Amino acid sequence: MKETLVRRVKEATLKDPILIEGLPGVGHVGKLVAEHLVEELKAEKIIEIYSPHFPPQVMVQEDGTIKQVRNEVYAFSGQDGQPDLLLVVGDYQSATNEGHYELTGIFLDIAQEFGVKRIYALGGYGTGQFVDKPTVLGAANNAALVEEMKQYDVVFHENEPGGGIIGVSGLLLGLGELRGIDAVCLMGVTSGYLVDPKSAQEVLRVLCKALNIEVDMQALQERAKEMEKIVGKLQEMEKAQMPYECGGDEDLRYIG
Amino acid sequence: MKETLVRRVKEATLKDPILIEGLPGVGHVGKLVAEHLVEELKAEKIIEIYSPHFPPQVMVQEDGTIKQVRNEVYAFSGQDGQPDLLLVVGDYQSATNEGHYELTGIFLDIAQEFGVKRIYALGGYGTGQFVDKPTVLGAANNAALVEEMKQYDVVFHENEPGGGIIGVSGLLLGLGELRGIDAVCLMGVTSGYLVDPKSAQEVLRVLCKALNIEVDMQALQERAKEMEKIVGKLQEMEKAQMPYECGGDEDLRYIG
Amino acid sequence: MKETLVRRVKEATLKDPILIEGLPGVGHVGKLVAEHLVEELKAEKIIEIYSPHFPPQVMVQEDGTIKQVRNEVYAFSGQDGQPDLLLVVGDYQSATNEGHYELTGIFLDIAQEFGVKRIYALGGYGTGQFVDKPTVLGAANNAALVEEMKQYDVVFHENEPGGGIIGVSGLLLGLGELRGIDAVCLMGVTSGYLVDPKSAQEVLRVLCKALNIEVDMQALQERAKEMEKIVGKLQEMEKAQMPYECGGDEDLRYIG
Amino acid sequence: MKETLVRRVKEATLKDPILIEGLPGVGHVGKLVAEHLVEELKAEKIIEIYSPHFPPQVMVQEDGTIKQVRNEVYAFSGQDGQPDLLLVVGDYQSATNEGHYELTGIFLDIAQEFGVKRIYALGGYGTGQFVDKPTVLGAANNAALVEEMKQYDVVFHENEPGGGIIGVSGLLLGLGELRGIDAVCLMGVTSGYLVDPKSAQEVLRVLCKALNIEVDMQALQERAKEMEKIVGKLQEMEKAQMPYECGGDEDLRYIG
Repeated sequence: MKETLVRRVKEATLKDPILIEGLPGVGHVGKLVAEHLVEELKAEKIIEIYSPHFPPQVMVQEDGTIKQVRNEVYAFSGQDGQPDLLLVVGDYQSATNEGHYELTGIFLDIAQEFGVKRIYALGGYGTGQFVDKPTVLGAANNAALVEEMKQYDVVFHENEPGGGIIGVSGLLLGLGELRGIDAVCLMGVTSGYLVDPKSAQEVLRVLCKALNIEVDMQALQERAKEMEKIVGKLQEMEKAQMPYECGGDEDLRYIG
Repeated sequence: MKETLVRRVKEATLKDPILIEGLPGVGHVGKLVAEHLVEELKAEKIIEIYSPHFPPQVMVQEDGTIKQVRNEVYAFSGQDGQPDLLLVVGDYQSATNEGHYELTGIFLDIAQEFGVKRIYALGGYGTGQFVDKPTVLGAANNAALVEEMKQYDVVFHENEPGGGIIGVSGLLLGLGELRGIDAVCLMGVTSGYLVDPKSAQEVLRVLCKALNIEVDMQALQERAKEMEKIVGKLQEMEKAQMPYECGGDEDLRYIG
Repeated sequence: MKETLVRRVKEATLKDPILIEGLPGVGHVGKLVAEHLVEELKAEKIIEIYSPHFPPQVMVQEDGTIKQVRNEVYAFSGQDGQPDLLLVVGDYQSATNEGHYELTGIFLDIAQEFGVKRIYALGGYGTGQFVDKPTVLGAANNAALVEEMKQYDVVFHENEPGGGIIGVSGLLLGLGELRGIDAVCLMGVTSGYLVDPKSAQEVLRVLCKALNIEVDMQALQERAKEMEKIVGKLQEMEKAQMPYECGGDEDLRYIG
Repeated sequence: MKETLVRRVKEATLKDPILIEGLPGVGHVGKLVAEHLVEELKAEKIIEIYSPHFPPQVMVQEDGTIKQVRNEVYAFSGQDGQPDLLLVVGDYQSATNEGHYELTGIFLDIAQEFGVKRIYALGGYGTGQFVDKPTVLGAANNAALVEEMKQYDVVFHENEPGGGIIGVSGLLLGLGELRGIDAVCLMGVTSGYLVDPKSAQEVLRVLCKALNIEVDMQALQERAKEMEKIVGKLQEMEKAQMPYECGGDEDLRYIG
């Protein structure tokens, strides 16, 4: 397998879907929100993406079976005024710079195929300190979107995030603009040290308002605990492996 | 040489062969078992694989001649109820993430060409501590295989290996599943610090039971000593070279 | 997006233009001079270059909108004896060795398309110490150019820059020579620790003399302050991210 | 420039030439010997090789002009019983693993084009200690060559070089064997800390005997001093740049 493999596992017909991306990142805020939505909305998996840019790894599950690390796209058909959704989730982001560009390109190809006109990229913004009052920081690929997001209490600080947004979340905005797709990044402010369900809850609240959907939030706390356990194991393994790959990302604080 | 080279050195006709992979890894358990099988079964080398993903290196042998680092596939035609086998061994695993994916793809191509329906990926699971009673930890790419392996005293722990299985052994299960090939990983529990013949013996015992073959185990101890010497030299060289490649793998503990 | 994208945003007809490159580097001298020229001459952006060799990142601007990191080419049509110019500026240089080669090749393709016969590559030369009297160090891809530059007070030291010139500035000279294009590198001597407007002023003075143009230099100081702020933010982010990419370049002192 | 460029600068007709490779490496022994031969034999440059696998760099020469880093092939037409030669020299070896494979492939293509039947790969073997009596360590890609080399006082130690030979010198033997070309590596034993003219002299002596040629050795000492100066400058620059490329090679001790 030399090339990234996009594997269709189910057909889906969606009407003007909105794409939501929540891959691993700071405080796993984006991942937590997106996977919560997949579960609560009972979205269906339609695409699996395998790539040499992911770590060469399988996850071992509780029953002894394995799962090849991958990214996945789920589809949700909204009812009673809910919008249709495409949800991008996964075990890892690319381990290489080039891979971020390639995978973002693939996500945008899928978006265009389904007629997506708006993207929400979810992530965390790590402050390195205990966060008192959870807020959601924003960035968008045009000024009208910035204004629109402000009405959902998304905060736009002149100086944050300092240097920019790295990884798929950032590129969805940047490369999305080149394809004429509106995209906004919602970043839950978090310490960045742990999987942060409180920050995720705040992002989810903003997102639900913007999407005009309602989801139960109760399971979020529990999901965060479960995720923390898995993340902990991965970090342990990565630490043990550090001499191999010349860099672990357990302290990784990129936004997205 | 910009591309991986698959060099056929001998024709072979096998009937429903089982593929066994034992490349270098934790405690060199997998390598030790697979190379022991090659020797004891007098398997014949049929394929050599050269790749830019391997270190740019030749090994110097005792007589002053050299050997280009590579992976090799050996064939064994079973008799009296023994199964036919394909054995994958080698000096190194890929030095890059992408290379693990590419080489696993090549091994699976070869497997499919020969009609392989089952793969045993052999490795070690490093605990970082002295191991009292050697056990064999398992993972498989479907639930039926997990059950089958339990009857050979393969242990499936809910929490081990923690984060997953990295390298060719893991990918043979993950990418093998995408091609519909049953694959199981047998990991000898080991400290991970030295070439571990005791752990290898345990893996070999499980494997022989599962394959319904018998091999003498006496030479295993000696082979481990020989391998330890070579590994030691390689580690020395890698240490000396560390500034060059920005990471050695002498403490490498990946599973597989 | 697997390949570098050259995006034409405006047509331009230029007569025998001179290409000036000022990408980020030591003391951001080259970037400061080239961007100052773009502003003062009101040059028009004609090309945007996006590449997987750049960091996978967007910059967040003051109004909450983002900008995909990229390189850009501006065109200036000279009047009253001023030469026509192509100006190459950008947020980053390539993050990989190969990318430097590829992007330089692209800049030279553009140069040839417009009939460029001379290139000025601007950069800084970091001494690691406070610089008393700003000077401009030079290198060129033929001896006649060396002589010509000496008349503009460009200094050629036998021993500096010690080992060579790294990055796009160096390659524009080296690969430019293979295509028969005259190219000179002007390096402002600088401590290398901060964005250095004094060093930039000296480079600008030499360049203006050589080009026979005049530009106001007043805004240079202010621009340097603005750039210092952005660079500071990027460095902070890069520092936070170091475990991720196994190397930051905040102490980067390459010339060019 | 995305691909390695092989640039023919002069035609040459050679009869059964022998290829000699001396690229930078431990103690710069190989480079010193090969460049000395180029000078003393007045060999002519016939090929220049530029590659994205080399550092993105130009060298600045004493007169202020630059030289793009590259590898070069020189041709020598022997007279009075001297053999014809192809000499491979250069500023750098590849900065990537894959590049070593690609460039070795290119050197072997050139060798086959000229009908080369034997290769001498020159290098140093660093002991990390002061070397009392210079010796030349050998390795070869077949047993007959090992025996032949012993008659020129080349030493073959059971345990040295420990783990193997890394870089182009090693691959010329390994990949050369796959193409049926005899190849031997001559390694001058050296401390590895400095450019070592004494070790180079010993390698040159062995090589001249094997080739049946005579060259003056007087200039070797001076050439070593000159090379030491340049190497020192490069190392300084590389040290300054280390955070950029995540590894310098100033302590590099690979063989070849």
